[in-house]
Amino acid sequence: MIYELNPFERIDDLLTDGLKIIQNKKEFCFSLDAVLLAHFVNVKKKYCGVDLGTGTGVIPLLLSKKVEKIYAVELNPVMIDLAQRNVILNNLADKISVKSGDYRKIREFYPPQFADFVVVNPPYRPVRHGNINVTAGIASARHEITATLADVVKAAAYVLRFRGKFAMVHLPERLAEIIVEMNKNNIVPKRLCFVQPKKDKPPNMVLIEGVSGGAQGGLKVDTPLIVHNEDGSYTKNLLEYYYPDEFVNKNI
Amino acid sequence: MIYELNPFERIDDLLTDGLKIIQNKKEFCFSLDAVLLAHFVNVKKKYCGVDLGTGTGVIPLLLSKKVEKIYAVELNPVMIDLAQRNVILNNLADKISVKSGDYRKIREFYPPQFADFVVVNPPYRPVRHGNINVTAGIASARHEITATLADVVKAAAYVLRFRGKFAMVHLPERLAEIIVEMNKNNIVPKRLCFVQPKKDKPPNMVLIEGVSGGAQGGLKVDTPLIVHNEDGSYTKNLLEYYYPDEFVNKNI
Repeated sequence: MIYELNPFERIDDLLTDGLKIIQNKKEFCFSLDAVLLAHFVNVKKKYCGVDLGTGTGVIPLLLSKKVEKIYAVELNPVMIDLAQRNVILNNLADKISVKSGDYRKIREFYPPQFADFVVVNPPYRPVRHGNINVTAGIASARHEITATLADVVKAAAYVLRFRGKFAMVHLPERLAEIIVEMNKNNIVPKRLCFVQPKKDKPPNMVLIEGVSGGAQGGLKVDTPLIVHNEDGSYTKNLLEYYYPDEFVNKNI
Repeated sequence: MIYELNPFERIDDLLTDGLKIIQNKKEFCFSLDAVLLAHFVNVKKKYCGVDLGTGTGVIPLLLSKKVEKIYAVELNPVMIDLAQRNVILNNLADKISVKSGDYRKIREFYPPQFADFVVVNPPYRPVRHGNINVTAGIASARHEITATLADVVKAAAYVLRFRGKFAMVHLPERLAEIIVEMNKNNIVPKRLCFVQPKKDKPPNMVLIEGVSGGAQGGLKVDTPLIVHNEDGSYTKNLLEYYYPDEFVNKNI
């Protein structure tokens, strides 16, 4: 089967369950963050969940074999089109529903408390920080131009059922704000995993999972995930995270 | 000079600046937590600070060469007596003032906003968790019997000046609650350091520093501090933390 690609697009292999992804080289492309988040979140086969700001749809694709249904929301029209074509490319129209919409207005298009889980790989930086990228799509994927941390946690809390799970990947420097926003929305942090580029470098990502309406306390902080060995190669732990099937089969 | 010790007491060497400490084997003895906290907090020579729940006074002793003055508060009469004798033993009566008092009533004995920093090595566990130790002093040092996390952060916020520093050591599982309490009291987390017993084990301590009235954001998460090498010996990083002088001089 041949797929027509638009200018600047390419098809990449997701290296998981035979999945493929179309990305636009001029727009924000998925990275390690999304893959780690898809592996981090604790889901069950019968779960139905929401991906807020899905981008290319990479997280729903990676979760498609693990859950029943994923509702993916995206604001940027170029990304909505990509996400929709990625669903078709992978024959996942029954599993993944891509919604064009602004999650700050989530009450207008989703009912409350229907989701077993919410995943978010949000823009990392407030507008005041860093240079804004010239491409509008990349700028809003990296900076909180279209929605803030408070907006995304509020949207998640609205769709999550009682005891539903919220999982996010973000910068360690935003952790305190994340926890405060979760607390405001009655989502109790239950698991943290820091990701370090190397063992002697500070973390540059944090994965956090919380439970809506959960009891206070009992946060589990994992052993940090180290990405690279001293020689620059990927660590065994990272490979297990990234390519669990390959790792199990081939024992890399 | 000979010091009279009570039954069950012993004098230990703090291995820092020639300091010595009297401890009571039947009461709570200082441990690595206190030493790490004393090294973690960012202080200046002219600073005056408060240690809430000082126990044997170990943190004030360790900070005595680094700051101008430390006010140490303690509720347990056995510990107050020990802390006072430790101050005398080390000739530090001009630097360290030991106050018998309950920091839940701190407004009754200290003025507001006079402290440049506050250090806290509080009881780690809420009363509902774990077995309560039979010795009353150890029980209240380990469990939140006499004061909760909320009480200690509130007391710290009361004595801290604008931009004053708050530093605490605690269990990673309490981190979310700590951040929420700090936020309630307008203390903004600025630095986190997790302590792992070994590199492949999850952290069992967290050091956190916040600034009273600080601007939101900009949390710095350090590379984790690993305590033991694979063979059980102390890591180079830990030795630098624990015995900075010895390490520099002898290059252990």
